[in-house]
Formats: sequence, C-alpha cells, structure tokens
Amino acid sequence: MLHLYSDSSPNGFKASIALEELAIPYQLHHVRIDAGEHRHPAFLALNPHGRIPVLQDSETGVVLFESSAILLYLAEKTGRLLPTEPPARWEAIKWLQFQAASVEPLLGQRVHFELFATEAMPAAVARYRRLTEEAFGVLDDALANRPYFAGEDYSIADIAHFGWLHIAQIIAFDFQQYRHLSAWFARVAARPAVRKGITLPEPATGA
Amino acid sequence: MLHLYSDSSPNGFKASIALEELAIPYQLHHVRIDAGEHRHPAFLALNPHGRIPVLQDSETGVVLFESSAILLYLAEKTGRLLPTEPPARWEAIKWLQFQAASVEPLLGQRVHFELFATEAMPAAVARYRRLTEEAFGVLDDALANRPYFAGEDYSIADIAHFGWLHIAQIIAFDFQQYRHLSAWFARVAARPAVRKGITLPEPATGA
Ligand SMILES: N[C@@H](CCC(=O)N[C@@H](CS)C(=O)NCC(=O)O)C(=O)O
Ligand SMILES: N[C@@H](CCC(=O)N[C@@H](CS)C(=O)NCC(=O)O)C(=O)O
Repeated sequence: MLHLYSDSSPNGFKASIALEELAIPYQLHHVRIDAGEHRHPAFLALNPHGRIPVLQDSETGVVLFESSAILLYLAEKTGRLLPTEPPARWEAIKWLQFQAASVEPLLGQRVHFELFATEAMPAAVARYRRLTEEAFGVLDDALANRPYFAGEDYSIADIAHFGWLHIAQIIAFDFQQYRHLSAWFARVAARPAVRKGITLPEPATGA
Repeated sequence: MLHLYSDSSPNGFKASIALEELAIPYQLHHVRIDAGEHRHPAFLALNPHGRIPVLQDSETGVVLFESSAILLYLAEKTGRLLPTEPPARWEAIKWLQFQAASVEPLLGQRVHFELFATEAMPAAVARYRRLTEEAFGVLDDALANRPYFAGEDYSIADIAHFGWLHIAQIIAFDFQQYRHLSAWFARVAARPAVRKGITLPEPATGA
C-alpha cells in the first residue's frame, strides 16, 4: 500500500495529482502544517527536513521526500506518466528538474518576501519577481509549439508545474500574459484527476 | 560524443565530476558567465534559461540543462553511479533531489544576500543562514551511520552535494561543526575524479 503524507499546498498537490492520475490505491494522511504537525517526531522520522509531501511504499519499504523524487518513483513503479523513448523521456525529466530547482524555490522566496516577511524589503521583492517572470517566460516559450512539456504526452513534468501554478494563480502571481503557458494551464486544469488532486487533503485557499 | 557546456561554478562541477568519474570521452566547452557568454544566442538555443551546465549527446540527440537531469542521464546511460536495487536507488535519487530543490537554491540565495546584494538586508541574510544551516544539519544526520548518501555506494547524490559544498567551503560558508558531513566531504574530496572535476573548465576562486 502507498501512503501519502501531505497538506493542501503546491508540492503536496504534485503527489496527490499524480496518484489520482494513476488511479492506484493509496492512503492519504493529512499533515497540518498550520498546526505544526510537520515538526512532530513521527513525521520527522519520515522526513527529517520536516516538509511535505512524503510517500511511503509499504511493499518496497521505500520512503521518499522531495516531490520530484516521488513523481519519478510513481512513474517508474507504474511505467506511466513518463515517456520511455529517449528524447521525450529526457524532455520530461529536464522540465521536471527545472520546476523543482529553478522555478519552485524562487516562487517560494517570492511568496515569503511578497506575502509573509514582517519587514518590507523592496529589493528582495523585485529580485524574486524578476526571477519568477524570467522563468515564466522560459516556460511559455517551451510550450509555444507543443501541448505538454515533454511534447505530445502529458507527463510528471506537467504535474509538477501545475501543482505550483495552481497556487500562483490563487495568490495572484499573474501569468496570464504568457499565452502558451495559460493555454497549457487551462488544458491541464480540465483533467478530472487534476481537479480532484488539488482538493486533497483539502482545497487550498492560500500559499 | 558528449558535449559539456560549463563554467567553474557549483552546478557545473556536478557535471564535470560525474564525467571524470565515468571516464567517458567528452568535449568541454567553456561558457564564461563573467563575459556574458551564457546570454549569447548560440547558448540560449541550448538552454533558454541561460544557465550552465548543459549536456549535449550527439549520439541520441538529447540536450539537457539542469544539473540533476544531467546526472540522472549520465547514470542511466552508463549504468553507473546510481544503485540499481530499490531502496538504495531511491535513497540516491531522494538526496539528489534534496540537493537540487532544497539545498542549492537556498545556498544560492545566501550567496546573493551575503556576498553580492548592493543593499544590506540583514533579515534576508539571517533567513538564508538559518535555512542553509537547517539543511546542513539534515545532511549531517543522514551521514551519521553510512559513508555515502545512498548507503555503502558513492553515487550521483554525493557528486551533487559535493559540487556545491566545495564552493561553500571556498566562500567560507562554514560547515565544519557538522562532523559527519565534514568527514564525508573529506572522503569525497580525496577521489581523483573529484579533484580533477573541480578544476574544469578551470579552478573556482569564488561563487
Ligand atoms: N523541495 C521540496 C519542498 C517541500 C516543501 O517546502 N513543502 C512545504 C509545503 S509545499 C512544507 O512542507 N513547508 C513547511 C515548512 O516549510 O515548514 C519538495 O519538492 O518536496
Ligand atoms: N538548477 C540549475 C541551476 C543552474 C545555475 O544557476 N547555474 C549557474 C552557475 S552555477 C549559472 O549559470 N548562473 C548564471 C546566471 O545566473 O546568470 C542547475 O542545477 O543546473
């Protein structure tokens, strides 16, 4: 049995969307960040960094944190959501890594300085706006001539980007001007598994 | 033939170390960030985000940016530097992703606010010190009972962490107090391929 430990937040949605797409049985455990449950010893035993999501596979004994590791694991376990042929396969992995290493951390910093920092730091706000806009531009160009990041097929790369952009939209980090990215967003948002995934463990209302 | 486009910087060293470990032929192209060569159209055609490293495999037609995608590709192409058995394999991928998504972006922000920002922002400096120290602590604990991140075997996870910690050391982001991490660092630093990799395309002297 698969166990997903998650909260209603961008990295968590990557895992819940993937599991819903795959339609394989799993048990969902709600780790309430607001209540500090990600700092409880039982959870730190799964992820010593105290972050969601965590996936546990009781069949193989694998316990994973880091949403991209979880997406790669689910794709490898099921043979789905990741093309097998070299060029498309590596396109998917490249854009997955781009999300994890070059987009999500900067969106996270933008959230901090724009919405949460107690002290106003305009230079920091401007820095992360500039860097996230640069990344949106790269994503927009990547989607100019194809429906999904890996090409013709929807993959874990799309799931990773969607998880975060769903939240970007809720908190008004506007990316409407990026036409291809917006069209892709609407295309992915229409998928039933995506619509379900973003309500697990409950719908997000903020960052 | 493999082509590596890189500069003497942390993410570049991940790729050069891996190629030196694998001892497979490749051609090295020096992209001088200081001279703005990462913004030249020919380079942007390889990576529209304008960052090094980039790997190009003329045999398969694959062109990759994102250092973790490059490490995964080299491991898959050669069947080396990544355990094949499930628990160790996913330990390696988990710690690789942790480096890429949860350590390197924060070290990068710390470099910016501590060393480069024209305006002093003590709250931002404190934030990234706290977050990178937290990550060092997690890495230290992970290495308490095993020589390498994946367990007994040296893997791309070690290469990824080393590439950045080598620079952390040069710029005096001190991690000596983390005993297990420091012992691991010395163990990895002693490898001939690592010593060579960190001089390619030339030795690093700063961030
Ligand atoms: N790189 C990690 C990031 C995980 C992460 O930051 N998760 C957030 C929720 S989206 C969290 O647990 N935050 C709690 C905290 O920072 O204390 C991943 O992709 O899984
Ligand atoms: N997440 C990317 C980061 C790549 C990156 O930031 N590379 C730096 C050198 S270590 C770079 O090219 N910087 C140039 C710039 O930011 O303009 C990776 O892991 O490859």
